[in-house]
Amino acid sequence: MSLDLPETLSRVRSLVDARLPKLLERGPAAGLLDDVPDPLPPAARDALLSPGKRVRPGLVFLVGALFGAKEERLLDPACAVEMVHAASLALDDLPSMDDATTRRGRPALHTVHGEDLAILAGVTLIVRAFGVLADSGLSTIRPAPALDLVSRLADASGLWGLASGQSLDLRTGEADASFDRIETIHARKTGALFVAAAEFGAVLGGARPKELAAVRSYAKNVGLAFQIVDDLLERQDPARTGKHARRAPTPTFARHVGEEGARRLVQELTLHAIEALEPFGARAALLRDFASALRDRSS
Amino acid sequence: MSLDLPETLSRVRSLVDARLPKLLERGPAAGLLDDVPDPLPPAARDALLSPGKRVRPGLVFLVGALFGAKEERLLDPACAVEMVHAASLALDDLPSMDDATTRRGRPALHTVHGEDLAILAGVTLIVRAFGVLADSGLSTIRPAPALDLVSRLADASGLWGLASGQSLDLRTGEADASFDRIETIHARKTGALFVAAAEFGAVLGGARPKELAAVRSYAKNVGLAFQIVDDLLERQDPARTGKHARRAPTPTFARHVGEEGARRLVQELTLHAIEALEPFGARAALLRDFASALRDRSS
Repeated sequence: MSLDLPETLSRVRSLVDARLPKLLERGPAAGLLDDVPDPLPPAARDALLSPGKRVRPGLVFLVGALFGAKEERLLDPACAVEMVHAASLALDDLPSMDDATTRRGRPALHTVHGEDLAILAGVTLIVRAFGVLADSGLSTIRPAPALDLVSRLADASGLWGLASGQSLDLRTGEADASFDRIETIHARKTGALFVAAAEFGAVLGGARPKELAAVRSYAKNVGLAFQIVDDLLERQDPARTGKHARRAPTPTFARHVGEEGARRLVQELTLHAIEALEPFGARAALLRDFASALRDRSS
Repeated sequence: MSLDLPETLSRVRSLVDARLPKLLERGPAAGLLDDVPDPLPPAARDALLSPGKRVRPGLVFLVGALFGAKEERLLDPACAVEMVHAASLALDDLPSMDDATTRRGRPALHTVHGEDLAILAGVTLIVRAFGVLADSGLSTIRPAPALDLVSRLADASGLWGLASGQSLDLRTGEADASFDRIETIHARKTGALFVAAAEFGAVLGGARPKELAAVRSYAKNVGLAFQIVDDLLERQDPARTGKHARRAPTPTFARHVGEEGARRLVQELTLHAIEALEPFGARAALLRDFASALRDRSS
């Protein structure tokens, strides 16, 4: 693996970490201005700015680079994807869901700001993600592609994406946990936003439909592999993710087919991901490295 | 008042009630298809399809008609506004917020589907609202105005709108309840979505900036009046709204300045609303009727 991948991801992370707080700063809409102290913005900031790997923005940039997209056009859409991801973490941790007390080694959002504000902070970040895409469509990118991103992010987050994945996850007991159902949960809960991130890079780089389909396939496989690796690493070291949840862990592939089986699955998925990149030849080197690095982490 | 207003509102309500369920029906995104029964869509449908007056869609249509917008362009955006409103009701009722057991005379959503699914249903409806706007932008309306609607709906729902209003509402005790703060809460919690609804009609009818400002002013005043009338009617008949909440009622104008003062405020607000319509002359008759009907309900 070249050194380019860690360097690129680290650079994207810096760009995103510098940009995210600015995207929550926008002044109130005219006519609603006042000086009442509002407890919501600090809760939303805490949810968004807690330290994270920014993997999904990284994927937006890597796929964008493949199609020659300018980085200034990628940054805000990448931040929008991260906003939806951060919201999903705040909501997953709620007492009525995973009932987590810590996340990324810090107290879970609702234990600090209250359950009500944790819910509203999650909603706020989701709503703001769409606002950021709309703002981009009036500045760095044109309205038509911006609206395309709105559509893809909505599909990835709602009834056919994240929210559905979380609902299935919460309502799937060990006894119902078939291979297909676990795959569906992971595909919606993790895969859908990975796919949206890759689509963002492709759309912003002007990819053709066939190219878009190829990066979708890549991202779907990488997203599933990412989730399995995460589950494997958590089994080896429960403290690693810094999350402590009271709810029994959801059915995972590692539980369903065993650790060896889960590792084989990661090998297969990353292989499929890399195969999907074939049409791009050497230009897709960093995306190949991204999938290989994931595979290597699981073994 | 002419008979046209009730007729128009009733027609819009029928159109919206017929359209809303269809907007939750869209098939899953390619690659995420499966036949696992998902508890989320029924929860989202219950949240959206419970009987309501559809006042905000009515406002989209009334303002749209003022600017000659075609009704086929108004319908889906009006449904998007109603989706955000329905989501806000489901979230407001949660145990960590108003802790309501009934809404519109029916069991509150979380008492039927569980708190987790009520939260996810709320999130889902919000996300779908943006998806519906994006779909409109690729069919009945062009991308640029559709993206404009995305931006306005995001501003009205998040950190500077609904979510902020709810956060201030939850964290304002009787002692902090100044006139200005109550106005801010109402302006964000109720006014912002009324303003967005009016803006939707204006943007879709191709209103000029000055005309847009006039209908904004109208909707802001009508939204505040609507909230006060609602509070007054609920004081007279607590069973009227069909909502039973365990949390102490929030500070309202009726409590702060007394019922007589609140009625005077409604008179003033509806007068301001009607004044804002002056540039439109007789064309704005239905919007005038809408404000007058609100005033009459409070006395």
